[in-house]
Amino acid sequence: MRCQRCGKVAQINLRIYNLKLCNDCFLEFFSRRVRLTIERFKMANLNDKILVAVSGGKDSLSLWLLLHELGYSVRGLHINLGIENFSEKAQEKVEKFSQKFSLELKIVNVKDIFGKGIEELARIAHRVPCRVCGMLKRYIMNQEAKEFNCIATGHTLDDEASSLLGNILYWREGYLARQFPVLEEEESLKKKIKPFCFTSEEEIVVYAHLKNIDFFKERCPLSKGATSFVYKEVFNLLEKRMPAIKLSFYKEFLRKKFFKDKKEVNLNPCKICGYLTVDSICNFCKLKEKVKNLN
Amino acid sequence: MRCQRCGKVAQINLRIYNLKLCNDCFLEFFSRRVRLTIERFKMANLNDKILVAVSGGKDSLSLWLLLHELGYSVRGLHINLGIENFSEKAQEKVEKFSQKFSLELKIVNVKDIFGKGIEELARIAHRVPCRVCGMLKRYIMNQEAKEFNCIATGHTLDDEASSLLGNILYWREGYLARQFPVLEEEESLKKKIKPFCFTSEEEIVVYAHLKNIDFFKERCPLSKGATSFVYKEVFNLLEKRMPAIKLSFYKEFLRKKFFKDKKEVNLNPCKICGYLTVDSICNFCKLKEKVKNLN
Repeated sequence: MRCQRCGKVAQINLRIYNLKLCNDCFLEFFSRRVRLTIERFKMANLNDKILVAVSGGKDSLSLWLLLHELGYSVRGLHINLGIENFSEKAQEKVEKFSQKFSLELKIVNVKDIFGKGIEELARIAHRVPCRVCGMLKRYIMNQEAKEFNCIATGHTLDDEASSLLGNILYWREGYLARQFPVLEEEESLKKKIKPFCFTSEEEIVVYAHLKNIDFFKERCPLSKGATSFVYKEVFNLLEKRMPAIKLSFYKEFLRKKFFKDKKEVNLNPCKICGYLTVDSICNFCKLKEKVKNLN
Repeated sequence: MRCQRCGKVAQINLRIYNLKLCNDCFLEFFSRRVRLTIERFKMANLNDKILVAVSGGKDSLSLWLLLHELGYSVRGLHINLGIENFSEKAQEKVEKFSQKFSLELKIVNVKDIFGKGIEELARIAHRVPCRVCGMLKRYIMNQEAKEFNCIATGHTLDDEASSLLGNILYWREGYLARQFPVLEEEESLKKKIKPFCFTSEEEIVVYAHLKNIDFFKERCPLSKGATSFVYKEVFNLLEKRMPAIKLSFYKEFLRKKFFKDKKEVNLNPCKICGYLTVDSICNFCKLKEKVKNLN
């Protein structure tokens, strides 16, 4: 097997592109794609400060390291969700990673804010844990990003294609109108970027392996049955017959902008904290209030 | 297990709706849905003459019988495609069915027109067989439908949802703009209707069983690897986790009409036969010409 770029011995065979590469050419290919994605969508300039949301999984740790390698000034933000037998292990991986690569890290603990972890908070909010988790993470990220130009998340091509498929299957117009690799800053909401939106998890696994990234491999015990897993299964099935369908499906969606005119919800500042929300009080403040009333 | 309509013993459990029914209530449920679909989309009036395209499979034979039961004046049209070890058996099933239920049938044989079957014609046309087959069937149906008000095909909810998914995955705007259960008459193109568009194959299997329909079960040997099978597999996977997603996906698509303004191709009458086509000469006449030049 020969590298299709330089002709040396290839160690890597990317099924998604049917592309054989040696380690060096893969690393160049990988970082080039992310660099071009950042440029194409005007995600960031080289003097920007980027807050990287890091869970401890392969995607976010790889993104954190790569943005650093590309020359951006980055800080990692890890949110400890207080999930028993899970969150402490995730945090440990993140801390070790930040030490190993000398990357600046901030840790926010949900229990420090609410006195409770996600599982209990979800019960109090009468919501599924994934929803409360997403809401808290968005809120905390925005709070922590005040001195930064943008927030980067490790959403991959697989994530974006899956969530696009889910939004299409239910024709969720609002989400379809908003699904884009960059969300511009809007009052209390910091600019958000997804530099891995054209990068598949298959590639990230290789990158993490080549960089010796010791990432956290466990699935969140509260996310069991999340529909996103089904959509990923669907794409695995489709990719076997139609290689690179994931990438073309997502790319063409972005290019054709079918849903851009679909009505979005109007957001107003929360009366308590000023965070943009659909109601008069945001879900974060509502949850805080509920927890306070319990005590 | 009790019938959720009448309380008698239920023989049928429709997974797609999680609905338990006795045989009588199922038959009423089944025919009512098709009747309402015909009315909702103004597919046909009771005094209309309908040409039903029948392959010999469960969908088309069931449709033929049901339209007859609903009071429409129907004739079956079977096109023998000249596929060795396949087409003769399909034709036999159709003929036996038409005799058993005393339904009028016309058979057109592709070999009578071209002197060759689909497989050879596909080679001559340098096209995959499914494409030539579809083109020929559309052409012959239109030719045979001159005295009829419309052509009915047995496309099911599974077919429509699958083809919608395929068109979405590749963002085929023209097809998305045209995908509708009724295509109105346009010069040489007869009105086309799909009365089973909201009826799942699961239901049709039950109907065919209750009506003792002896249908043709073999898959066309030339359609191996057709992507439509992959999309159906995808929906089987999705339905397990999200019951009735197939129906809601397709229904919402029809209701929201996102793609209705997308440009369609312009059609002109074929210079030889007058059939509407994108070129100056239609594919049917081109193929006829090619076959003539071979001899």
